[in-house]
Amino acid sequence: MGGRALVQWEQNRASAPDSLTVDLYAGGAAPEGGLEDVAFYQVPYIPSSQGVDERLDVIARMPSLEVVQLLSAGYEHVLPLVPDHVTLCNGRGLHDASTAEHTLALILAAQRDLPRWALAQRDHRWEAVPLRSLADSRVMIIGYGSIGKAIERRLLPFETEVVRVASRARPDEDVHGVDELHDLLPGVDIVVMVTPLTEATRGLFGPREFALLRDDALVVNVGRGAVLDTRALLAENGRVRAALDVTDPEPVPVDHPLWDAPGVFFTPHIAGGAAAFYPRARAFMDTQLARWASGQPLANVVQTGDTSR
Amino acid sequence: MGGRALVQWEQNRASAPDSLTVDLYAGGAAPEGGLEDVAFYQVPYIPSSQGVDERLDVIARMPSLEVVQLLSAGYEHVLPLVPDHVTLCNGRGLHDASTAEHTLALILAAQRDLPRWALAQRDHRWEAVPLRSLADSRVMIIGYGSIGKAIERRLLPFETEVVRVASRARPDEDVHGVDELHDLLPGVDIVVMVTPLTEATRGLFGPREFALLRDDALVVNVGRGAVLDTRALLAENGRVRAALDVTDPEPVPVDHPLWDAPGVFFTPHIAGGAAAFYPRARAFMDTQLARWASGQPLANVVQTGDTSR
Repeated sequence: MGGRALVQWEQNRASAPDSLTVDLYAGGAAPEGGLEDVAFYQVPYIPSSQGVDERLDVIARMPSLEVVQLLSAGYEHVLPLVPDHVTLCNGRGLHDASTAEHTLALILAAQRDLPRWALAQRDHRWEAVPLRSLADSRVMIIGYGSIGKAIERRLLPFETEVVRVASRARPDEDVHGVDELHDLLPGVDIVVMVTPLTEATRGLFGPREFALLRDDALVVNVGRGAVLDTRALLAENGRVRAALDVTDPEPVPVDHPLWDAPGVFFTPHIAGGAAAFYPRARAFMDTQLARWASGQPLANVVQTGDTSR
Repeated sequence: MGGRALVQWEQNRASAPDSLTVDLYAGGAAPEGGLEDVAFYQVPYIPSSQGVDERLDVIARMPSLEVVQLLSAGYEHVLPLVPDHVTLCNGRGLHDASTAEHTLALILAAQRDLPRWALAQRDHRWEAVPLRSLADSRVMIIGYGSIGKAIERRLLPFETEVVRVASRARPDEDVHGVDELHDLLPGVDIVVMVTPLTEATRGLFGPREFALLRDDALVVNVGRGAVLDTRALLAENGRVRAALDVTDPEPVPVDHPLWDAPGVFFTPHIAGGAAAFYPRARAFMDTQLARWASGQPLANVVQTGDTSR
């Protein structure tokens, strides 16, 4: 622990314990002071960045590295770059408020026809038509973890009923296993998907699942694009509606049919990185640095490195 | 109470007490059976109808009338048409779920830039930009009654703080009086107006009030259009944003500057009449008819008629 820490935000440098040497690195060319003695590296968080970039390339040039801290929830893409003796931590939980809020925004946009009004306003058209409600809906949440619970908390005051689904049933929490999915789908009005992408969830929602939904049901995806079968959605041709923050492919190519698909509204993978993320991420980093300085166990460890440092 | 009742929905006719004679009337030409012996008249609810129409004209041709039941919350326009000896009841509470839900839809649309995405989707533009959040916002509700409370219940799980304002302070409920408005405005991020239109509320939010708001604050109006000074909003030119369901004038004329005002999003006075209204209105009518049949006091009385019927 004699090495330096690299963090992204001045707040975290300012509040770090005196025993730590902390420098700022917000991406781009290598930080001042070199990489030789970097022991704790918080990979700079850049919303909507895609692919491998120099923020990750620098990991290979840090021989004293003990901890890599991501602020994203996903970490699979970084695992191959992190040596086995280095601890890897992710940003689990930091995006919950932002993602759950965006989920409600998408649901309400779909139920309240907000895209229609935005287009009508641009065209100076005043056309009042009756609207759907969210109230009285039965909403299934597929992926009942930390974000799923945050979505549920926001849904319940809207006078809705929530059906909880996860990879395995947890009867004590009233959570159904995904093996019950086909029995449950005919009874719900709205399906929210908030799962990671794994071999088990890829294409989880396809033609069979759509066919089990009521006319005018709504499918919402804020997890990973490939969990939802885009072709199956397009084949519905508006019978089932969709509100998405993640898509497959992503970005959506300019000539893709998803842009003009009836009943489909999407935002460009921006749910988790809105303003609410930042104060939560800074507070987490303050606490994480304090844990590291005092030799306490770190939070959000997804790969345990050599603890004999 | 020997007379007939006119109601809008078959469900209410079917579940009425056997002692009542109930016919259907959904607007348009006079109902079958004439108007002579109508004692209980539920004025048919037609979303977004404007001005006086035959649904109200028929009141003058009902000599046996005892009760007029509106399903709208507003009743001022009907008062002059209802004789003093007739009881008038309104639809207070029936629109709360629908209006509160639309209020959250407008707030989230503004914070999450949903109009921008709707227009980008139409133009096949994938452009991810950082977003505001609702989380961590301080939200003022001006008009802390039944709908205001319904809005608050939906706001709190979004990790917000609510500042309650009503015409008079109610310290036991932590409600500020509107006389404190100017002291409170500099500290809030979002202002929600949900007040009736009275001489006290007309133009309540004008140039002085806008000037007290932070840059990028959001003003939401779901009450009555003329509570917000449209000229003052236009003069902000995007410094303060707005998300409105009611406007002044209403409808907005096709060449009005509000259509293209920067940072302004509006829907055409549809908040309260969405799907959630109907089951609540039908349940209310069942109970109200049962009260009338058994001589119990009616709910939602806004003009007490001759109780010696």
